[in-house]
Amino acid sequence: MFYHDKQLQYTVRVDTPSPVFAKMLQQAIGGVEGEIRVALQYLFQSFGARGPAKYRDMLMETGTEELGHIQMLATAVAMNLEGSPAFLKEEMAKADPLLAATLGGMEPRQFLSAGMSALAADANGVPFNGSHVYASGNIAADMYSNVAAEATGRVLACRLFEMTDDPGMKDMLRFLIARDTMHQQQWLAVIEELGGHTGTLPIPNSFDQSQELTEVSYDFFATGIDGVQPPQGRWTSGTSLDGKGEFRTRINVPMGEEPKLAPPISIGYAETQQMGESDTETVIRPQ
Amino acid sequence: MFYHDKQLQYTVRVDTPSPVFAKMLQQAIGGVEGEIRVALQYLFQSFGARGPAKYRDMLMETGTEELGHIQMLATAVAMNLEGSPAFLKEEMAKADPLLAATLGGMEPRQFLSAGMSALAADANGVPFNGSHVYASGNIAADMYSNVAAEATGRVLACRLFEMTDDPGMKDMLRFLIARDTMHQQQWLAVIEELGGHTGTLPIPNSFDQSQELTEVSYDFFATGIDGVQPPQGRWTSGTSLDGKGEFRTRINVPMGEEPKLAPPISIGYAETQQMGESDTETVIRPQ
Amino acid sequence: MFYHDKQLQYTVRVDTPSPVFAKMLQQAIGGVEGEIRVALQYLFQSFGARGPAKYRDMLMETGTEELGHIQMLATAVAMNLEGSPAFLKEEMAKADPLLAATLGGMEPRQFLSAGMSALAADANGVPFNGSHVYASGNIAADMYSNVAAEATGRVLACRLFEMTDDPGMKDMLRFLIARDTMHQQQWLAVIEELGGHTGTLPIPNSFDQSQELTEVSYDFFATGIDGVQPPQGRWTSGTSLDGKGEFRTRINVPMGEEPKLAPPISIGYAETQQMGESDTETVIRPQ
Amino acid sequence: MFYHDKQLQYTVRVDTPSPVFAKMLQQAIGGVEGEIRVALQYLFQSFGARGPAKYRDMLMETGTEELGHIQMLATAVAMNLEGSPAFLKEEMAKADPLLAATLGGMEPRQFLSAGMSALAADANGVPFNGSHVYASGNIAADMYSNVAAEATGRVLACRLFEMTDDPGMKDMLRFLIARDTMHQQQWLAVIEELGGHTGTLPIPNSFDQSQELTEVSYDFFATGIDGVQPPQGRWTSGTSLDGKGEFRTRINVPMGEEPKLAPPISIGYAETQQMGESDTETVIRPQ
Amino acid sequence: MFYHDKQLQYTVRVDTPSPVFAKMLQQAIGGVEGEIRVALQYLFQSFGARGPAKYRDMLMETGTEELGHIQMLATAVAMNLEGSPAFLKEEMAKADPLLAATLGGMEPRQFLSAGMSALAADANGVPFNGSHVYASGNIAADMYSNVAAEATGRVLACRLFEMTDDPGMKDMLRFLIARDTMHQQQWLAVIEELGGHTGTLPIPNSFDQSQELTEVSYDFFATGIDGVQPPQGRWTSGTSLDGKGEFRTRINVPMGEEPKLAPPISIGYAETQQMGESDTETVIRPQ
Amino acid sequence: MFYHDKQLQYTVRVDTPSPVFAKMLQQAIGGVEGEIRVALQYLFQSFGARGPAKYRDMLMETGTEELGHIQMLATAVAMNLEGSPAFLKEEMAKADPLLAATLGGMEPRQFLSAGMSALAADANGVPFNGSHVYASGNIAADMYSNVAAEATGRVLACRLFEMTDDPGMKDMLRFLIARDTMHQQQWLAVIEELGGHTGTLPIPNSFDQSQELTEVSYDFFATGIDGVQPPQGRWTSGTSLDGKGEFRTRINVPMGEEPKLAPPISIGYAETQQMGESDTETVIRPQ
Repeated sequence: MFYHDKQLQYTVRVDTPSPVFAKMLQQAIGGVEGEIRVALQYLFQSFGARGPAKYRDMLMETGTEELGHIQMLATAVAMNLEGSPAFLKEEMAKADPLLAATLGGMEPRQFLSAGMSALAADANGVPFNGSHVYASGNIAADMYSNVAAEATGRVLACRLFEMTDDPGMKDMLRFLIARDTMHQQQWLAVIEELGGHTGTLPIPNSFDQSQELTEVSYDFFATGIDGVQPPQGRWTSGTSLDGKGEFRTRINVPMGEEPKLAPPISIGYAETQQMGESDTETVIRPQ
Repeated sequence: MFYHDKQLQYTVRVDTPSPVFAKMLQQAIGGVEGEIRVALQYLFQSFGARGPAKYRDMLMETGTEELGHIQMLATAVAMNLEGSPAFLKEEMAKADPLLAATLGGMEPRQFLSAGMSALAADANGVPFNGSHVYASGNIAADMYSNVAAEATGRVLACRLFEMTDDPGMKDMLRFLIARDTMHQQQWLAVIEELGGHTGTLPIPNSFDQSQELTEVSYDFFATGIDGVQPPQGRWTSGTSLDGKGEFRTRINVPMGEEPKLAPPISIGYAETQQMGESDTETVIRPQ
Repeated sequence: MFYHDKQLQYTVRVDTPSPVFAKMLQQAIGGVEGEIRVALQYLFQSFGARGPAKYRDMLMETGTEELGHIQMLATAVAMNLEGSPAFLKEEMAKADPLLAATLGGMEPRQFLSAGMSALAADANGVPFNGSHVYASGNIAADMYSNVAAEATGRVLACRLFEMTDDPGMKDMLRFLIARDTMHQQQWLAVIEELGGHTGTLPIPNSFDQSQELTEVSYDFFATGIDGVQPPQGRWTSGTSLDGKGEFRTRINVPMGEEPKLAPPISIGYAETQQMGESDTETVIRPQ
Repeated sequence: MFYHDKQLQYTVRVDTPSPVFAKMLQQAIGGVEGEIRVALQYLFQSFGARGPAKYRDMLMETGTEELGHIQMLATAVAMNLEGSPAFLKEEMAKADPLLAATLGGMEPRQFLSAGMSALAADANGVPFNGSHVYASGNIAADMYSNVAAEATGRVLACRLFEMTDDPGMKDMLRFLIARDTMHQQQWLAVIEELGGHTGTLPIPNSFDQSQELTEVSYDFFATGIDGVQPPQGRWTSGTSLDGKGEFRTRINVPMGEEPKLAPPISIGYAETQQMGESDTETVIRPQ
Repeated sequence: MFYHDKQLQYTVRVDTPSPVFAKMLQQAIGGVEGEIRVALQYLFQSFGARGPAKYRDMLMETGTEELGHIQMLATAVAMNLEGSPAFLKEEMAKADPLLAATLGGMEPRQFLSAGMSALAADANGVPFNGSHVYASGNIAADMYSNVAAEATGRVLACRLFEMTDDPGMKDMLRFLIARDTMHQQQWLAVIEELGGHTGTLPIPNSFDQSQELTEVSYDFFATGIDGVQPPQGRWTSGTSLDGKGEFRTRINVPMGEEPKLAPPISIGYAETQQMGESDTETVIRPQ
Repeated sequence: MFYHDKQLQYTVRVDTPSPVFAKMLQQAIGGVEGEIRVALQYLFQSFGARGPAKYRDMLMETGTEELGHIQMLATAVAMNLEGSPAFLKEEMAKADPLLAATLGGMEPRQFLSAGMSALAADANGVPFNGSHVYASGNIAADMYSNVAAEATGRVLACRLFEMTDDPGMKDMLRFLIARDTMHQQQWLAVIEELGGHTGTLPIPNSFDQSQELTEVSYDFFATGIDGVQPPQGRWTSGTSLDGKGEFRTRINVPMGEEPKLAPPISIGYAETQQMGESDTETVIRPQ
């Protein structure tokens, strides 16, 4: 169950409002690297957690923190929009190009749909999409999904940091970037606690590996045509990271046949010309 | 540039067609854990790769392999649907419940829209969505996105493996599961090659860390109300994984103020009752 | 900022797990009438609230409550799925139709993607879509959006109530239905506090109504062709609800002209046959 | 069944074409507050209407009118784009920034995909999404969904009114704003005809209210932590709007237990470390 | 502007209601081959039509007809659902599998969200998506988009025809299939009127063809690796359909170079290991 | 199975990078007229091909070619973004309007999410949507879907050609436009090979046409109200294109009745006022 108080987790201050920056901040709210995604991802992982309660609890702790980050960023958007409609109004008297410049930099729906506030959408106004809430029920898979979210999230925050000179916004981002630092650590620490690569790989480690075609389990398949040199690296030789195999490079050649599907059946309503033999190249004769 | 031949990378054989399994296989084609996603993800990372060419090349090698996995799975779907419409036809003469049973287990669009073939969609018929193609331009972030994709992908393949007793399908999945094993290794091997945790964290490692609020960079924030004990783990004490800090637990209390937004301006068309003071709790008096 | 504890707002108990009901419950989690939507809607309205702080605060109170409803329902989904995969396994040995029956009633991704847990999606697996988070910046518009959400939400909950005989699930729904009762009241109480119809209509009431074409502001336009009798009701005669006009019925006839667009210009690359006059019906002569 | 003539419902005239305004108008066509949505919403409510025919008929009347609004706005978009590609062409010879200004204000697909015409999308080019077509089968829920649509729709139209100085566009909006005035009235008039709050609440009023947990049906739950004062209003004391209860404020404390899910089962392929006890906090020991 | 009457364009009668068929019919309403799509597509093409008015008018005529088809199908869905919830209720007393069978064949939201009516969605409940409304501003491109819509639409209707034995439903489909026959003709008749292949190809025919790389304008590129025989057909030899070239087969070999992108710049926040040379394969040395 | 080499199919060169053009190019990558769509569409048609192998093989040949077009365009996007972030940085020191101008012309996610690279999305950042991958199982329907894709695709490429003066970009587009010329021919050549209109229409030609209501199979239905003159053309008189009927114009009048649905049943939870008779217009009496 959840509770709130009235303050923000960290100060949000905007010295010089910028509708352009308000648009960019949307990516950190409703974008695939954004806070709605991580909040719901950690909470859904927690709600569905089976196994040791400590991970369920940790996910709840941090998912709850992320809810406060949505609030901070939504507040930052609203503050960056202050003054902008007045500016727009003034621009209305002028020629189109300048207005276009300003509007081009704005997210029009922050004004038209939200009255100078944030939306549950990304920097292009694409609505938040719940399919990015990864919660697989496998803790190692989930931890890597979380690391990926926090890694792309911190990259985004650093890029936003470059896009503003506003001291208040820079201060807020310093806080959020630091939290992303911790959260990257946090999910990787679970991997370490579970035994690192040898303890967790391959994910899921509960599948009996003798069931897979181990013949190709540690092979780097090169798909280049003749003359393309496959790149060498840690993944092409030496012991595999899970300690269970040896890496090698292998030229990819078909191990399977040419696929042959049955001819269409009548109730599928293909064209009649498709109805004959399917595995020959006889020229079709139109009726 | 791309080429093809006529065979499959690995044999696809269906001994007993199952429309129910054909539906489930769609998740591995167009789902968030599926092959369209990884194929496009690795290819887009390759197309946009800046920095050492070897990673660009490796991504191209494996992205191309994944295209062949889409083909294998689409072939498997078509083969699992063979015989099913005929069965449906026969069921038409009977009462609804049995037909419902069969149709309920089918993806109706595999018949209605695709004429007994695969769709670029997931097991619920939700179309593939390009926002899952993560390609951030930061190689460590991308590698973890790839590990997450292959971890959830292998979990999916193992679950599919349990959902079928068909020897052909089990054989195909043995191959795909093994390839997922390798691909998990492959992306983590890049992380190791880049120096592991100390060489890559925090991601991006090119941001001057003195700019972030290091005061909170290695703190686990506990968001439980009084009486909720925060969980302990590798992330609550000891040196951080990047070797740059010490983990500690900290009770989350507001470091910011109560947010106060300016009142609405006239052209935003709030209700007139919203137009007064915004930071007091005076009771509204309707006009 | 947000906090949590470890308990649920209300007991969630499942006496007889039902994967069919687990699928249906998804509509109340990630559907357009669901809890993710109302939680985010009330929180975004609060985050962007301008004007009297009391409404901002009330929205925060209830948005926070709704977060706990997501948790309750996600827990209910996980509990309803318990036992079902074992059942599935057992069914694997049998003929397809029965398995199809069970799987047809399941949301396959609750198993394939989430490992027996809830998804941020609706009963058909369509992901939650952030465009349903209505927060317009006009409090009356927002209150009616909230009433609409709680009205469709309570209708959904009542229908779910009919779909289960499980005492635990019925008990949980009794709680949620009661909360929807209150929340419908709550948003309508704000309308009353703002002066009811005369105090709030037309929304936005801050637009100078003399600017609109008042000639048609209280007219019911009948669009039936000759012989279709327009329906009579409170909206066809008598004083309007805002007390500012008189309702009347009016046959809809064009007040505008036939639209005539300019011909295509060269860089738009229409077909050459479209390039001539646009307002005549000369027969096209192919080149 | 539907018919048409060649004229517009109301004059559409553009004195000074503006591609910036053409982009904004898209929100009123394909946005969540737009005309495709209300047209389809009223028509689907009519198509599925059960109960008194008069409401079915009224919905058909107005749904049909809204189709003509889509036409008016699409015409307005096309007219606002006239001249703009020529302007673009001229700008091509100049430096990027000015072109960027113009293009930034444009919806690129109005040119690239539609050849200077309107799209079935919103101001950001996000396609119209049919999930916003609310038609619940409960007339009171539907009427409030319609009020919400017309309230946000009129707010949008008023904001658009401010964004243009073009006399033709202002004239068109005066008409559309007036129609929104009527349509807000119309749906609320149905509520009044059905008996107002006491006749319709709680929605659905056909659910036996003794089945809900009436103990919490009129309680405002305060979710603030200690020290947060819950806001007072019409919803915290006095008789409820439906006349069936008394409002009161109640501090939200858990009425439920800590959720405990069963451990993962084998075919779900969690990590092996998750397979043990699920309700204790024993530290995990990696293999 | 649009009008309506109270009748359907053609009789809709359901002799034996089938919730399974009600689900399938959704594909013809809100699916990519469905009636919402063609109605909006023809209307948007008409609203944006530039050039000869006759095509604009014809599109309006048929777009208006299609609105009536949405109505017919939505009515058919509602009729097919009659009796089904009662049946469900009865099933509630029984074991899960049978209920699952029925529910598996149902679209749960037709009951949960719509109260036994149609949705603006496809057979899987995926909402109608406005991006399928193709209206390019080039009449030949639009006519082919329309032929494609009517061809897939008639295929769908024929498949639905096989999925029912209900005399009423078969009668309705006979009508809709016949209308699709005409509409395929209608759009192809425009192509013929515009001069057929020689008059319309390549589309757009207004682009100066000497500007394209005519060297490859009529070449079939074979992308198979060595040993894969390219298929022969009308497209590999003989005069091209537009009479302007000769078809030939050509092995696809790169005409371009290996792409080399500039190294990442600092504010893009790649990993530091990516910052060096981008066009060499030097092994990366972690810090 | 697929292979690659390191070069591009055709040279991609950018003389003067333009972030504005980089945004526009996205439409040709992830838009509905773009290369991801055609690549997947042809490949899925090939993967599911039943009937003569030659078409399956041809689709594979060209689908593979299109993969290389995605690569070319993604490379073009990355090259057009070079220099732009540096420019942005410099602009940071200046006033908002100029920065807004530049940013307005940019796709913000090309920087924020992708680090100066392409996305799997359209020019507005709307993600690629797999529902545009049309593969119906009927070859004639598929060929027309392909013609539509290549026709809108070539129109798009021509418009892009006008939007740039960059010699490198123009050269690349000359190649892509020429390939679209061929691909339009290629799919229409299949239609010709199958016998043209008489051999393929109506699609599907395998449905027994005596089953459809041939009474209306070649009728142009005029839906205008009295006084609206239906447009004349090839489709209103003369022999139909398939040679099987005569075109005629017919005024659209209802052939069906007024639809009457059963009243709502109890478990659907309509309002009680809806529960009575459904086919009369008795005024509702609130409780």
